[in-house]
Amino acid sequence: MTDNDSTRGSYVDPGREFVRDTRYIETRITADGRDGYPVEPGRYRLVAARACPWANRAIIVRRLLGLEGVLSMGLCGPTHDKRSWTFDLDPGGVDPVLKIPRLQDAYFARDPGYPRGITVPAIVDVPSGKVVTNNYPQITLDLSTEWTAYHREGAPQLYPEHLRAEIDEVADLVFRDVNNGVYRCGFAGSQESYDAAYDRLFARLDWLTDRLRNQRFLVGDTITEADVRLFTTLARFDPVYHGHFKCNRSTLTEMDVLWAYARDLFQTPGFGDTVDFAQIKEHYYVVHRDINPTGIVPKGPDLSSWHSPHGREALGGRPFGEGTPPPPPLPAETVPPF
Amino acid sequence: MTDNDSTRGSYVDPGREFVRDTRYIETRITADGRDGYPVEPGRYRLVAARACPWANRAIIVRRLLGLEGVLSMGLCGPTHDKRSWTFDLDPGGVDPVLKIPRLQDAYFARDPGYPRGITVPAIVDVPSGKVVTNNYPQITLDLSTEWTAYHREGAPQLYPEHLRAEIDEVADLVFRDVNNGVYRCGFAGSQESYDAAYDRLFARLDWLTDRLRNQRFLVGDTITEADVRLFTTLARFDPVYHGHFKCNRSTLTEMDVLWAYARDLFQTPGFGDTVDFAQIKEHYYVVHRDINPTGIVPKGPDLSSWHSPHGREALGGRPFGEGTPPPPPLPAETVPPF
Repeated sequence: MTDNDSTRGSYVDPGREFVRDTRYIETRITADGRDGYPVEPGRYRLVAARACPWANRAIIVRRLLGLEGVLSMGLCGPTHDKRSWTFDLDPGGVDPVLKIPRLQDAYFARDPGYPRGITVPAIVDVPSGKVVTNNYPQITLDLSTEWTAYHREGAPQLYPEHLRAEIDEVADLVFRDVNNGVYRCGFAGSQESYDAAYDRLFARLDWLTDRLRNQRFLVGDTITEADVRLFTTLARFDPVYHGHFKCNRSTLTEMDVLWAYARDLFQTPGFGDTVDFAQIKEHYYVVHRDINPTGIVPKGPDLSSWHSPHGREALGGRPFGEGTPPPPPLPAETVPPF
Repeated sequence: MTDNDSTRGSYVDPGREFVRDTRYIETRITADGRDGYPVEPGRYRLVAARACPWANRAIIVRRLLGLEGVLSMGLCGPTHDKRSWTFDLDPGGVDPVLKIPRLQDAYFARDPGYPRGITVPAIVDVPSGKVVTNNYPQITLDLSTEWTAYHREGAPQLYPEHLRAEIDEVADLVFRDVNNGVYRCGFAGSQESYDAAYDRLFARLDWLTDRLRNQRFLVGDTITEADVRLFTTLARFDPVYHGHFKCNRSTLTEMDVLWAYARDLFQTPGFGDTVDFAQIKEHYYVVHRDINPTGIVPKGPDLSSWHSPHGREALGGRPFGEGTPPPPPLPAETVPPF
């Protein structure tokens, strides 16, 4: 998504705390098609951006479930202007399937007066060119529960019924204090709101450290939606949130348990192979000019240790449960090595 | 000092690299008084700010040499406006000895049209109220070599004759790439100038790491001026330069050799007891609004590990040579614990 009111191009509201607009287009793509959009291979296009943590969730889940062949993906570039995400990475700056240069074109096809942020991830109905939904927390859950007919053989259960209450509970805490908490630090309009967000963030990271000290994954003994949601924030922690958003009690690399947990996921097929650190850094540092007026992108941190052994296998757990890891990414969707 | 043209209140020159104005008032206070300002107990006042790395050098050297009784010290607060440093920490906002609210008053007493930055450290002639010198690299050397008649018993030799060439050589490299290098990163006006400064900074830190791996201090086997000069930058590295100036290949705490070296000095009387991390953070994050428009000051990093064992005694070396550590700071000059 974009991080605030992208039509203003500003992210900090002086004197105020940061409040995310969480109103999304809530139409769902379901197996029974009750909202008019049935699950159908080849009909929809996931529009994402590798830079964005909320979109990164959908990229990961699509890959873990092996939906690449039935749900195509368009990728916006890492930076954008006040009119939000563009297909500047594509030849001619136009998405080859949707034939549009800006994601807003698909939003305006759906609603010419669409009043809120032009956000990723969005799923677009290719025949009509209209955005079906940008409701990112629902998008990944629906990929897990509504697209089951098209999951690859060996796809993991990311949202198993018997664990849903616990996944929802953990994900809610992680959203408030961590996923969105880092933004509440970075876009705080006052010292007080920053201080409060910082305290909540690190208290929650301490809580997560305790939870993960002797347990390999957040809920149950396999990867779930809860891990996907925490991972995309942890991957951005040292490259962006630590400095740019002032989340600097310590680096992720200094939080031993979370750092090993993050590396474990990173090295799991479907996670790290979706992460483009260069695009991540460029996005935040170039787009948020009101907190980084120069637009200069840091060269650090040294990221080589993401590949180092994490030792978490000793805790047991079976990442894919009864299933198997996904094969390597499609050539066209392979992230350059860093 | 202030970090650039304080009369503009801006630090980044868009499209340009950062160039420090190194023209200072070069009058010297000497034992023989050849510039009209002889060393004389009680006559001069060192004006410093705990926030400023260049002034911090003079605070450390004055303390190591035991000059508190003969050279009084006025301290400016951590933040300032376009008219530069003020005595806002003092009752009524006026320095109790110089009777002025702003350091610029002493500069203008010396030269009503003083055209350059109003910088700390400065030494003021109390009877006339005029700044004698703000030439910070010379100030500390003169404290070591011209004020010898007033050094405390057991004062260390910070600039011993037989090591001067080596100290000068190391200090010059450290100035260009590290002391000033961090500013060249933080105030870079283009990605290219930032990238170049970052590469030089970390190459020099790697060089320093090699030099200090098996040698306790930078030059010889005792603390010298070279250590003082490196220390004040290292002390500010994680609290400020890593995030605010984008010097983020790694934190100081991740550079094992330099981190142990910095802790060794920090725990040496006369070094750490001059460091006020709260003032340091407030200064940079509040004053440099063109790179931190919100003025929000990070709560991190966790600084408790500055007190942890460093193990550098195993390398040998005698911090004070034939001398002894200084006694604790004067009560009025004691930094609050963090």
